[in-house]
Amino acid sequence: MIIIGLDPGLTATGWGVIAKAGSRLSHVANGQVRTDAALPLPDRLAALDAALAEVIARHRPDAGAVEEVFVNVNPQSTLKLGHARGVALLALARAGLPVAEYATKLVKKALVGTGGADKKQIQAMLGVLLPGVRLAGPDAADALAVAITHAHLLGSHR
Amino acid sequence: MIIIGLDPGLTATGWGVIAKAGSRLSHVANGQVRTDAALPLPDRLAALDAALAEVIARHRPDAGAVEEVFVNVNPQSTLKLGHARGVALLALARAGLPVAEYATKLVKKALVGTGGADKKQIQAMLGVLLPGVRLAGPDAADALAVAITHAHLLGSHR
Repeated sequence: MIIIGLDPGLTATGWGVIAKAGSRLSHVANGQVRTDAALPLPDRLAALDAALAEVIARHRPDAGAVEEVFVNVNPQSTLKLGHARGVALLALARAGLPVAEYATKLVKKALVGTGGADKKQIQAMLGVLLPGVRLAGPDAADALAVAITHAHLLGSHR
Repeated sequence: MIIIGLDPGLTATGWGVIAKAGSRLSHVANGQVRTDAALPLPDRLAALDAALAEVIARHRPDAGAVEEVFVNVNPQSTLKLGHARGVALLALARAGLPVAEYATKLVKKALVGTGGADKKQIQAMLGVLLPGVRLAGPDAADALAVAITHAHLLGSHR
């Protein structure tokens, strides 16, 4: 099965696609969608939506996974993140995908074994779990991490 | 010209459509889209998206207007609102509409003359400005109010 993970953000949304065959995982693709801060907000959301629709059409995932959000202390940042996250969840739902949400701590624990892992540890573990992967950036790394979390937790039920 | 106003929310999103001919305004339609709290978040967003697309297709507005948000003290509520607002802005942008955003105070001032107006004053003024209007609910009223604000401010430039 093909799993897409998303790490939504208005400035950059990371995406990562992996394939799961039994307990074996492999990397398919990853990337980051950036939107132009000079554009009006609705246009930025439309650009994000179009880019995610294109990624989904190209890789035809069977399931989606998105990180649950640790809300920011700055309410305006939280609202902005909400806009991008709403569009990302919608992109998955519109494609008919079941969508799972995982807390950041759970993602870290699934990958590194501890909820307190830092980004470097996560990225190092991605290199181990998905040999040869080249990360498009930190948001793409987080997106792959949530996709892998979903693959692991699916595995534990099947 | 036809203007659609939106008052986004995850539980209920109000929408209101008005027609502007010169300085004359008239009511076209208003309503509220409710999403089922028992559904997963992505499905609620997809339901909201589909309902708004249907309203836009039916009334073919030329422009959209959305209230700027007073962010909630509760970050989780702000995030939820952000999800719905992102989907609402996207629905307008995807339909190719120019989208204006207005602060709540400005909407109140445009309708009642004071930024401190309460909901009852707004709703009473809607009855004056759009004779015979029947409001689907408080969110639909707020949506009509932001549409009228846009009509007024457009008028001041043309």
